[in-house]
Amino acid sequence: MPDIGKLLWPQSVAVVGASSDVQGLRGRILQTILSHPFAGRVYPVSRSATEVQGLKAYPSVDILPEPADFAILIIPARYVPTELEHCGRAGIKAAMILSSGFAEEGEAGALMQDEISIIARRYDMAVSGPNSEGFANIPAAFCPTFSPALDKNAGPIKPARALGAGHVSVISQSGGLGFAVFDRARPRNLAFRHIVTTGNEAALEAFDFVDYMLDEGMTDVFLLLLEEVKSPEKFKRVAEKALRVGKPIIVGKIGRSEPGARAVASHTAALAGSEASYRAVFDRYGLIEAKELDDMIDFAVGFLACGNRMPAGKRIGICTASGGAGVWMADACAAAGLEVPVLDDATRKSIDVHIPSYGTSQNPVDCTAQGVHKLGYATFAHLVAQSPLIDGIVVVVTARRSAFLEIDLPKLENLQHDTRKPIYMWTYTLPSDRSVEILNAAGYPLFTSAFGCARTVRAMSDYRASQERTSSKPLAACRAHPAYEKVHAALKASVTVLSEYHARSLLDAYGIDGNVGTLAGSAAEAEVAASIIGRPVALKVQSIDILHKTEVGAVALNVAPEDTRAAYERVLESANRFVPTADIQGVLVQPMAPAGREVIVGVSRDECWGPLLMLGLGGVMVEAVRDVVLAPVPLDHEAALALIHRLKGSAVFGRYRGMPPADTGALADLMVKLSQFAFDHADDVTEVDLNPVIVHAKGDGITVVDALIVKRTVQRAGHRTAAE
Amino acid sequence: MPDIGKLLWPQSVAVVGASSDVQGLRGRILQTILSHPFAGRVYPVSRSATEVQGLKAYPSVDILPEPADFAILIIPARYVPTELEHCGRAGIKAAMILSSGFAEEGEAGALMQDEISIIARRYDMAVSGPNSEGFANIPAAFCPTFSPALDKNAGPIKPARALGAGHVSVISQSGGLGFAVFDRARPRNLAFRHIVTTGNEAALEAFDFVDYMLDEGMTDVFLLLLEEVKSPEKFKRVAEKALRVGKPIIVGKIGRSEPGARAVASHTAALAGSEASYRAVFDRYGLIEAKELDDMIDFAVGFLACGNRMPAGKRIGICTASGGAGVWMADACAAAGLEVPVLDDATRKSIDVHIPSYGTSQNPVDCTAQGVHKLGYATFAHLVAQSPLIDGIVVVVTARRSAFLEIDLPKLENLQHDTRKPIYMWTYTLPSDRSVEILNAAGYPLFTSAFGCARTVRAMSDYRASQERTSSKPLAACRAHPAYEKVHAALKASVTVLSEYHARSLLDAYGIDGNVGTLAGSAAEAEVAASIIGRPVALKVQSIDILHKTEVGAVALNVAPEDTRAAYERVLESANRFVPTADIQGVLVQPMAPAGREVIVGVSRDECWGPLLMLGLGGVMVEAVRDVVLAPVPLDHEAALALIHRLKGSAVFGRYRGMPPADTGALADLMVKLSQFAFDHADDVTEVDLNPVIVHAKGDGITVVDALIVKRTVQRAGHRTAAE
Repeated sequence: MPDIGKLLWPQSVAVVGASSDVQGLRGRILQTILSHPFAGRVYPVSRSATEVQGLKAYPSVDILPEPADFAILIIPARYVPTELEHCGRAGIKAAMILSSGFAEEGEAGALMQDEISIIARRYDMAVSGPNSEGFANIPAAFCPTFSPALDKNAGPIKPARALGAGHVSVISQSGGLGFAVFDRARPRNLAFRHIVTTGNEAALEAFDFVDYMLDEGMTDVFLLLLEEVKSPEKFKRVAEKALRVGKPIIVGKIGRSEPGARAVASHTAALAGSEASYRAVFDRYGLIEAKELDDMIDFAVGFLACGNRMPAGKRIGICTASGGAGVWMADACAAAGLEVPVLDDATRKSIDVHIPSYGTSQNPVDCTAQGVHKLGYATFAHLVAQSPLIDGIVVVVTARRSAFLEIDLPKLENLQHDTRKPIYMWTYTLPSDRSVEILNAAGYPLFTSAFGCARTVRAMSDYRASQERTSSKPLAACRAHPAYEKVHAALKASVTVLSEYHARSLLDAYGIDGNVGTLAGSAAEAEVAASIIGRPVALKVQSIDILHKTEVGAVALNVAPEDTRAAYERVLESANRFVPTADIQGVLVQPMAPAGREVIVGVSRDECWGPLLMLGLGGVMVEAVRDVVLAPVPLDHEAALALIHRLKGSAVFGRYRGMPPADTGALADLMVKLSQFAFDHADDVTEVDLNPVIVHAKGDGITVVDALIVKRTVQRAGHRTAAE
Repeated sequence: MPDIGKLLWPQSVAVVGASSDVQGLRGRILQTILSHPFAGRVYPVSRSATEVQGLKAYPSVDILPEPADFAILIIPARYVPTELEHCGRAGIKAAMILSSGFAEEGEAGALMQDEISIIARRYDMAVSGPNSEGFANIPAAFCPTFSPALDKNAGPIKPARALGAGHVSVISQSGGLGFAVFDRARPRNLAFRHIVTTGNEAALEAFDFVDYMLDEGMTDVFLLLLEEVKSPEKFKRVAEKALRVGKPIIVGKIGRSEPGARAVASHTAALAGSEASYRAVFDRYGLIEAKELDDMIDFAVGFLACGNRMPAGKRIGICTASGGAGVWMADACAAAGLEVPVLDDATRKSIDVHIPSYGTSQNPVDCTAQGVHKLGYATFAHLVAQSPLIDGIVVVVTARRSAFLEIDLPKLENLQHDTRKPIYMWTYTLPSDRSVEILNAAGYPLFTSAFGCARTVRAMSDYRASQERTSSKPLAACRAHPAYEKVHAALKASVTVLSEYHARSLLDAYGIDGNVGTLAGSAAEAEVAASIIGRPVALKVQSIDILHKTEVGAVALNVAPEDTRAAYERVLESANRFVPTADIQGVLVQPMAPAGREVIVGVSRDECWGPLLMLGLGGVMVEAVRDVVLAPVPLDHEAALALIHRLKGSAVFGRYRGMPPADTGALADLMVKLSQFAFDHADDVTEVDLNPVIVHAKGDGITVVDALIVKRTVQRAGHRTAAE
């Protein structure tokens, strides 16, 4: 691994292509570097000028007074490979390429980008870009970027008084958005460490930087703007590492929508991948997805201020002096999936003595203006925090005037020691600078968006749960099933689409036996099988040439055992009539499944993430609603149960319309086994479809009504390019 | 109707309860009034002081130098009725009660609140409050409120240079939130006219103020914060009036969630009503719901800047210099339900000549920094606006620096004349004040939230559609169906829950005949009916004492005509065994319905809004997902079709899983007829349930499988109180 330290913390820097024209990017970048108090040495490299912006310029990187630690290349794309080669030969161990015109431009550009990665490997250089907007190392005051957010007149790069003791780093594949997050965070007094934009990632990827910064140990919250994950295995390793050390990664996923994904493909030559797949993987690895830029900042504010006291659950107490604003916050909490329970009697009694009768202690606690005026916010927040029903507190304030907060400040400061529960503040008016200062100094996160505040609480509660879930066990079990070799060989030997009977026999090896049935080769065999079952059966012609069995009359349902012989002849005849050339393996005889909840359980292969387990509510009408959840494989029983409960219609598994509760344990068991199957045979299987699966009442298990496996035939190497 | 003009535009004002102590609310309100250049005369009224804040004070409202136009009451609740009576007798025609402690406090308070409304009527006074935070009339600089947002040092109340020529008024049942919206809008340069908080609405309601302001004709956009609608008929009249004159009403509904609604109930003694009902009514009357405070302001910015050029559809073109930011905006557009289509070839060609090959003209149009640097944003926006595929344009800018916008300004100004399509701007960095000024002056709405910008475009597109839909016809047809009298009499005479056969006979009178069937009184009659049908039938015992027929074996399905006699005896016997006392009307004989899409069509009565038509996808599994839509009644065919398409799973009605398209025309027809039924019998019917209804293939109509009507028995007068 090349040394990213040389890139982010150089003692000496060559700016190749630097210019004195500060209207252009080649001048702006040098101007920006020089406008901050960076302590390192800066060497402009220019073919034409001997002096650039008052500094002596050098014609080439190999005749600098010293081999620079780090070279910045801002020259036309076609010169980049040669110049990078020069850097390598001159002993420069880190480089950043700002130039555009590589993979995002088509085939010729993609070839040049490949050259960059080869040169980087050859010289073991830490190479960032191309097509990046640079970075900023805030503690070093080193800002090699042309982003207007780092203009000297855009304001100081460190807050006069930071919120909390921690630091935030931004890593973004998009230059504009990466620095925008930094810029937008300014009024919130966050202390930043690094803002890195990675561009096309010819060599170094976003998660290489996360990895470096985890080792550096000085970043407490990561804000990532991702268009794609280039190396899924690296992602998994680094994301798990971050989760285990408790450094939250907040992700803004760029290109979630169809037009967005289309644009990403054209813009950085990346395949954005399915939004649902990304969400499933983010969820597994505890990454926190933020939908809006300002949410990313809100989340960072929450983690920096309350990272040492994350909410233990989702139950929120709200204190407010404005009834309407309290309700607004309750609505925001509910929208974020938080609970706002009515407080317990003891807590209510302790509050009731302090508020007029037109207030209420139920929750939201309407302390009334009069109550707050008398006692301050801190007293009420303290009382609410005592409730055993509450995991976190939101205090609704009006921070337009600071005078009142000023008076309350000593109590607010004490409150942080009196409770270990997190306390968040939302102001419905715009806060004065002084109010922000006071509350930040006392360690409180202050939000101007009620919904942003609520989403922050939810994100922190979820993150705590992810951490707890992960702390004791690895995220992916890696041992193959004992039946692996046998099934692997069978898969290798089979045709592309496996018939139901064939698919079932492979799944059976993994303990998925929900209705294997008997393959009958004659009417007599079918009759015997049915009489052993002793109740109505289903008959299904098995042939790899007949995928839609029902449509050609190759299925008979609800056949009484005594009618089996006739039904056997009927389905075979129908199959032969419709598909005369079909190679028929036999007729599958299965007991008819008793009623229950219909679900679909499957595996589908994501281009980037590999196999994902899929669970959806089933039935003709439901599929139009698309109530489907995904998870990476393998999955343990607990995760399978959690996934079942993430279905929007998961109420169907409880006591529902006269039915007793469903056997979700058996469903989870099926999911665990199928996920192991998918994990073991990831390279060989594109799709598994158990559709429908009937989930019976608790204790009665499940029935797999139909099964299908599609083998993987196309082995893709690397990524699609925009041209595909 | 009392004269609200006296309240909002008084020449003389009595402040009853005024104090010199500016720490308290009684001092603050007078201080705030005096701190703005209000031209009217202000008379403090005080029992104890002869001078208040430098003004001569009077002991009572009836010895003022003149009968004041308007009295502000800020005295303990128990004195309010008497004092209001004094005002009435003194000839004061308008009053505002800021005091708390009325309906929100319990029964005694509610009685006092009733007194207020009686006194207001007796003297024909315009009375606002109680429990309000006051109001501000910005053009009159009259600010009778203690909100910190109107503090002198909170900043000017009018922007130096306003966005557009129009004005915004805020009307809020919550004091805190109403002024918060005004406060938050300050950085956006909106010109406000009125900010009115209405409190408990003992007399004047939010929509009285909207009505007044519509007549006043100086408000172009209304921002409403509503906890409840007290008078649904007034709402409907005023909302329709606003829609017809094209003055958008943007609503923040307070108490959307369960904990929020619970808090509203305790806080203003209001029943918040079902969120879904409110949404259905808002939708019908073209009100625009905003989920977050900042969305309300974004929407107002959009309407003020582009209200004369609303997007004709949902197809958006995006121009950007930052690839990532363009994708982010595309994601935001998709999330708001907008389309971002690939541009047509002619438009693309006209753009391609101006951008480097690493940009793209597909949409989002990545003009690249280089392209924008050369030509400016306006040129690209102009080119995109020429596309016939595009209804509106979003330009993604970085407004941190204004220099570049300054250069582009003449072109930006021209652009507004060159196209009638609306152009929105989103800046991903924080805008400088000068940037805001430049863009506002050129008439562009500038957003800092990508998602807020996209939601604004969507809101304006929806509003335009609402207006077009409404322009030619009244929103509710009011003539009763010819069968009204007959059905009304039958309903009056019937028991509470009507049996299927009885319910069907009433619905049949409205042309809802989707499977009436024959009521057989004997096995022989049943056999005849079945043989006429000539295919399998359903038999259902009809009795008002047996509501759950299936569970007591009182239903037989798929009965062959020749088996009818036996089945008849079986269901009757079973019914008699389980419910020996049942009064049995007969056995309904109906043809079995062929397969199709299952839906539920019903009517339910909302406490506030009366009957609402309900449509949901049906079937056991679907109900857990709750894919349900509502609409006020009556409904025309077009609105019924639109409602069908609002189902999340509406794809089920198209070509779906091998089925031909469904007969949505017949379903819409059923909905129209049922909505007329519900409208006509609103006072007598609590619930109608057609469940399931089978929608067959196009041309084959629908089958109503079961029907139920529940009569309305409890007539509620007025609103629940918190105590209930």
